[in-house]
Amino acid sequence: MDLLIIGSIGFDNIKTPFGKVNKILGGSAVYASVAASNFVSPTIIGVVGEDFENKYFELLKKHNIDVSQIKVEPGKTFHWEGFYDYDLNTAHTINTQLNVFSKFNPKLSYETKNTKFVFLGNIDPDLQLKIYSQIENPRLIACDTMNYWIEKKLVKLKKLLKKVDVLFINEAEIRQLTKEYNIIKSAKKVLSWGTKIVIVKRGEYGVMCFYKNKIFVLPAYPLEKVFDPTGAGDSFAGGVMGFLAYKLKNNKMLTEQVLRQSIVFGTVTASFCVEDFGINKLYNVTYRDILQRYKEIKHLIHFEMI
Amino acid sequence: MDLLIIGSIGFDNIKTPFGKVNKILGGSAVYASVAASNFVSPTIIGVVGEDFENKYFELLKKHNIDVSQIKVEPGKTFHWEGFYDYDLNTAHTINTQLNVFSKFNPKLSYETKNTKFVFLGNIDPDLQLKIYSQIENPRLIACDTMNYWIEKKLVKLKKLLKKVDVLFINEAEIRQLTKEYNIIKSAKKVLSWGTKIVIVKRGEYGVMCFYKNKIFVLPAYPLEKVFDPTGAGDSFAGGVMGFLAYKLKNNKMLTEQVLRQSIVFGTVTASFCVEDFGINKLYNVTYRDILQRYKEIKHLIHFEMI
Repeated sequence: MDLLIIGSIGFDNIKTPFGKVNKILGGSAVYASVAASNFVSPTIIGVVGEDFENKYFELLKKHNIDVSQIKVEPGKTFHWEGFYDYDLNTAHTINTQLNVFSKFNPKLSYETKNTKFVFLGNIDPDLQLKIYSQIENPRLIACDTMNYWIEKKLVKLKKLLKKVDVLFINEAEIRQLTKEYNIIKSAKKVLSWGTKIVIVKRGEYGVMCFYKNKIFVLPAYPLEKVFDPTGAGDSFAGGVMGFLAYKLKNNKMLTEQVLRQSIVFGTVTASFCVEDFGINKLYNVTYRDILQRYKEIKHLIHFEMI
Repeated sequence: MDLLIIGSIGFDNIKTPFGKVNKILGGSAVYASVAASNFVSPTIIGVVGEDFENKYFELLKKHNIDVSQIKVEPGKTFHWEGFYDYDLNTAHTINTQLNVFSKFNPKLSYETKNTKFVFLGNIDPDLQLKIYSQIENPRLIACDTMNYWIEKKLVKLKKLLKKVDVLFINEAEIRQLTKEYNIIKSAKKVLSWGTKIVIVKRGEYGVMCFYKNKIFVLPAYPLEKVFDPTGAGDSFAGGVMGFLAYKLKNNKMLTEQVLRQSIVFGTVTASFCVEDFGINKLYNVTYRDILQRYKEIKHLIHFEMI
């Protein structure tokens, strides 16, 4: 198994200034795995209800995603309903129904325990720690989190951050987590806790990545049409982790350049995600499309030395 | 004369979460000219009151700034008082006293009329147009503006934008100006009006530059300590215009690379400005310091092709 992706699988109702959709496939594990599947064959660890039709399993399988570790439990699948205003930066939640996800507590199979690359999507830090401890001999483990867990489970979250290699977090969250306003200062604080790489997501402004005493800054791919930001953060993380799992297999070293390239791939993959509702566009993108934007972003930021 | 800089010269009272200062030298023309003087010898067109002591003229002269076109008028010098909260992105004005600046209406001398490079700082578009029409044979004219003029003088501002080569504007302002939320769409609209180059300032997130059908995106230089953002936009514009005036003298062509380099120099120059109150740090920076950050920003955004 190339890459484990743990997170939610669900149905979303989404409203943006440009339209609305009901009951479309979503959830952090879905976005991250569709993104990662451009580079490796990711395995989703997740749970769905009995209302999760076969067509969705087929849809994921067709995209090179291993669905064998998705549990089907009695009850309904996770459901999220939300909307965005014109600024598109903040998701406003109308309703969250955890349903079968409320009892999510995966026991990893022998094979999954031995996976080298793991993305712990945004779930309860207690669960993230439980999953972490089941991984026998990890190479690179990344996690995501959110304001809710920073408020409710700070001690456990900090315990997790001592152990993980990569933290994906947005600007507001890292400020809240570290009680530092300046992003460089807050990233340094998280590094001092033990996390090896801190990746701060800045939405339409791009990303900053901190590791050792170095910084990589990348603007987002400029888009004339941002349709639906749902899943942008997860498809970014999925792209980063997919590329890293691909490049670091067979015990290759993580170099600074591979890390930077992974962030560019994450950025570019996420740029497709936001151009249509849900996974509509992301699902139909080819590696060729991704590579095209990789080259474009290189040109967009290029300037010559003096 | 290398570069004309038209704008305010004044005294500021500034309060930030990190301290406060009273009656320090400021104003758009001061920031822009101190920044530009790293590349050329700029000439300020402006007005001060009788309270503007000789030491300030000397201070500007020592920085390679031509003060011969600054008029001293009976009355008091322009005064601004404002504060910033932790986000440091929005200046909150407490008090503006235009004083002698209220009657600012410069008649250019023979020599200044023949200057090739002009930066029309953020003043009334009527005045910007009057100055524009006095320039005999311009090579490159840039302007700045603000929400106040977009609200009060839209027709005149649009008339100016048909003529100028470069517009410096921030995100909120260009949205207001074009009634487009998306920055790419709004920049394209301004280009369609006739402005040749649109430079959108994004504060701590950097800058986007639009020209023909091309885009250049640059993140800001990352700073651990942002002390006082006053003058950041003006020192950015001053750095850009200073470098352009230097590189394009003797009728050199404006190439895409020179434009991109000018934006990097503007970015780097502005990064020093915000590290202390007023012009304190900007004034003491050398070209060597600027070049050092130019190289650093190149490395910060560097990634290899795949």
